Amino acid sequence: MSTERPLSDRVLMGPGPCNPYPEAVAALGRPMLGHLDPEFVQILDETCDRLRTVFRTTNPRTVPISGTGSAGMEAAFVNLVGPGDVVVVGVNGLFGERMCDVATRCGADVVRVDAPWGQSLDPAALLAAHPSPKVIAVVHAETSTGVRNDVEELGAGKGDALLLVDAVTSLGGIPLEIDAWGVDVAYSGTQKCLGVAPGLAPLTLNDRAWARRVEKPQSWYLDLGMIGEYAGTSGARKYHHTAPISMVFSLHAGLGALLAEGLEAAWQRHESCGRALHEGLERLGLELFAEKGHRLPELTTVVIPDGVDDVAVRRTLLERHGIEIGGGVGPLAGKVWRIGCMGHTARPRNVTLLLAALGEVIG
Amino acid sequence: MSTERPLSDRVLMGPGPCNPYPEAVAALGRPMLGHLDPEFVQILDETCDRLRTVFRTTNPRTVPISGTGSAGMEAAFVNLVGPGDVVVVGVNGLFGERMCDVATRCGADVVRVDAPWGQSLDPAALLAAHPSPKVIAVVHAETSTGVRNDVEELGAGKGDALLLVDAVTSLGGIPLEIDAWGVDVAYSGTQKCLGVAPGLAPLTLNDRAWARRVEKPQSWYLDLGMIGEYAGTSGARKYHHTAPISMVFSLHAGLGALLAEGLEAAWQRHESCGRALHEGLERLGLELFAEKGHRLPELTTVVIPDGVDDVAVRRTLLERHGIEIGGGVGPLAGKVWRIGCMGHTARPRNVTLLLAALGEVIG
Repeated sequence: MSTERPLSDRVLMGPGPCNPYPEAVAALGRPMLGHLDPEFVQILDETCDRLRTVFRTTNPRTVPISGTGSAGMEAAFVNLVGPGDVVVVGVNGLFGERMCDVATRCGADVVRVDAPWGQSLDPAALLAAHPSPKVIAVVHAETSTGVRNDVEELGAGKGDALLLVDAVTSLGGIPLEIDAWGVDVAYSGTQKCLGVAPGLAPLTLNDRAWARRVEKPQSWYLDLGMIGEYAGTSGARKYHHTAPISMVFSLHAGLGALLAEGLEAAWQRHESCGRALHEGLERLGLELFAEKGHRLPELTTVVIPDGVDDVAVRRTLLERHGIEIGGGVGPLAGKVWRIGCMGHTARPRNVTLLLAALGEVIG
Repeated sequence: MSTERPLSDRVLMGPGPCNPYPEAVAALGRPMLGHLDPEFVQILDETCDRLRTVFRTTNPRTVPISGTGSAGMEAAFVNLVGPGDVVVVGVNGLFGERMCDVATRCGADVVRVDAPWGQSLDPAALLAAHPSPKVIAVVHAETSTGVRNDVEELGAGKGDALLLVDAVTSLGGIPLEIDAWGVDVAYSGTQKCLGVAPGLAPLTLNDRAWARRVEKPQSWYLDLGMIGEYAGTSGARKYHHTAPISMVFSLHAGLGALLAEGLEAAWQRHESCGRALHEGLERLGLELFAEKGHRLPELTTVVIPDGVDDVAVRRTLLERHGIEIGGGVGPLAGKVWRIGCMGHTARPRNVTLLLAALGEVIG
C-alpha cells in the first residue's frame, strides 16, 4: 500500500495548485453532510455570498460549479453560445486558444483576435473585430504567459455584446470588478489565488446574460438553469447532481480566511510578493518574459537563460528543496519558467526561499 | 464566521453521500501536490489500477472523471453518441430519465423502453427495441427506486451495440463484472458504495467502444481522448485540466481500504447489511417498495404508511439522532423513503441504530 510511503510537503510555486490556506485544508475533513441537509445548504448559501464579495457583484447567479476551472469555462460557453452565434475571442496564450476550442464545440462562429504570447491584447482590436458579436471573450490573467489583459475597456465598449471573462488566475489575486466593469459572465478556479484545492469553478452570471442564455444547453451537467434550481438562485432546492460536499466545505473556509484578511489586503499581498519576486529575479540576472505594465504579480514568466537545462533546474528544485515551479507550455515549452505566488503561497517567506534556491541552483 | 458553529456528525443513510471511510477522510488533508508532480502521477496511476480491480476490467481507459457521477454519465454519452445515433435507454426511474435527457442533448435518436418505477427492466424488451442501435443504455442500480436492473443478459445479447451502464450506486456494493458481462462503458460516483466524498466519477471504457467514439465530442472538459493524454492511457502526460488533487488522494485511499477488505467481502457486507435492514423494516410492519428479487441491498425503498408524516419523520431522525434518510423523488415523492447503507455506512451497527430509531419515531 502506497500509504506507507512518506508524504512530501511541497512549496507550490508553479501555475497552480498553490498551497491552500490551512483553514481550507482543515475544512476538507469536516464531517460529511448530505447535499440537502439544512446545515449544508446554509454553508452553500454562505459560500455563494462570499463568492459575490470576491467577484464584487450582486449577481444572484453566483455558484461554485462542480468541476475544475475548465469546467467553469465550458459552463460559461454552453449556457450562452449556440450554433451560429458570433464569438470574438482574444488569443494571446493557451487559455485563449482553449476558449476557441470550447466555443467551436458549441457551434459558434469564432472570430479570433490574436496577440503574440507575452504581449497583452489590444481592447480596441477586440471591440472592432466584428460589428455585432453575441459574446466577446477574454482571459483576464493568462496562466501560460503571465500577462494581464485589460478587461475594463471591454466592458465600457462592448455595446450589445456579452462580456465573458476567464478569471481563473485573477480572482482574489488582482483587482477584478464584475459589476463595475460590466462583466456579464466570469468563472474562476479554486486552486489559484483563492488558496483552496482544485476541484470547483466559481462562476457568476448577470441578468443581462441570463436573458440571452441558451434555453437547453448541450451540457446537462453544466446547465445553469438546473444548477440554479438546486443552488437556490431560483428560491427552490431541487436536486440536480450531488454537490462535491467536502470541496464546498473547503471553499467556504478558504474564502472565510481570505475575507477575514480582506479582499483588498489580499490583492496587496499578491502585488507586493509579485513585485519582490520580479525584482529579485532581475537581480539574479534573469529576464522577465511578459510585457512590462501587464505583468501578473501572481504568475511570473521568466526566460530560461541560454545554456541552462530547464528540466534539470526544475527537478533539482523539487528534489532538493521540495519547491515546484512550472515549465512553459505550447510555444514556450523549454523557453520560460512559470513561477506562481498565489493564495497561501503568496507570502514573503516563499519569495525569499525561491530566490535563494533558484540562485543556488542556477548560480 | 460560521466556523464557530458546532459541526454535526451525521449517520448518512440517505441515497448518498454515505459516511466515507476514515482512510478516505484522512487522505483529503494530505499535503497538496502539483498535478504533474511525479508523486501525484504515481498516486493517480495507482488509483486507476485500483479502479480496474473494482470494475473487474483490464481496460486501459479507466480514469476518475473530474466531476460527480452525473459528469460520468455525460462523459459516457458525449464520447459515444453524436447526432442521429440510435440509443436504446431503459427507463424505470429518475436516472434512466436523465440518460434520455443527456442523450437527447447529444442529438441522439432515443428509443425508450419503460418499466414502472419499482419494477426491473425486461432485458429482452431492451434487446428487441431496435434492430441496430449504436448504444443500449441501462442503470444498474436505480437510486430513485432501489431496483437492480439485469446487465449480464444485455451484454450477452447486445450484438453490434455498445452496452453503456450507470454503475453509480452499484460499484463496490453489488457484483458488477465489466469484462465478463461485456459492458463497453460504465461510470460510477465516489460517494456511494466506494465510501468516498462526492466529487469524482470513475469511468471505464473498452477498446470496442473507443473504436466507435465521437472524434471531437461536444464537451471539451469531458473529452476522453484529451483526458487520456493526461491520465496516461496513451503513455503521455499532457496537461488537459488541473486534476482535483485532494479528491484523487481520497479516492486512492478509499479504494485502498476497500481492497484491503477485499471486493467480494465488501459485496458480502453490503448484502448482509441490506438483508438485515429489509427484514428489520418488515418486522416494523413496513412494506418494501422495490420488486422482490431485484431489491438492492445498498439502497432500500420503503412505503411510507398511511397517516405517517414523511417530512416530520425525517426531520425527527435528523434532529434527534443525526440520522439522514432520503425522501422519494419524482412520482415517489411523499410515497417512499430511501434508506442507504453504502460504503462505510454499511455496518451492522448502523442497521441496528436505524431500525431502533425509526421504530421509536413511527412507533
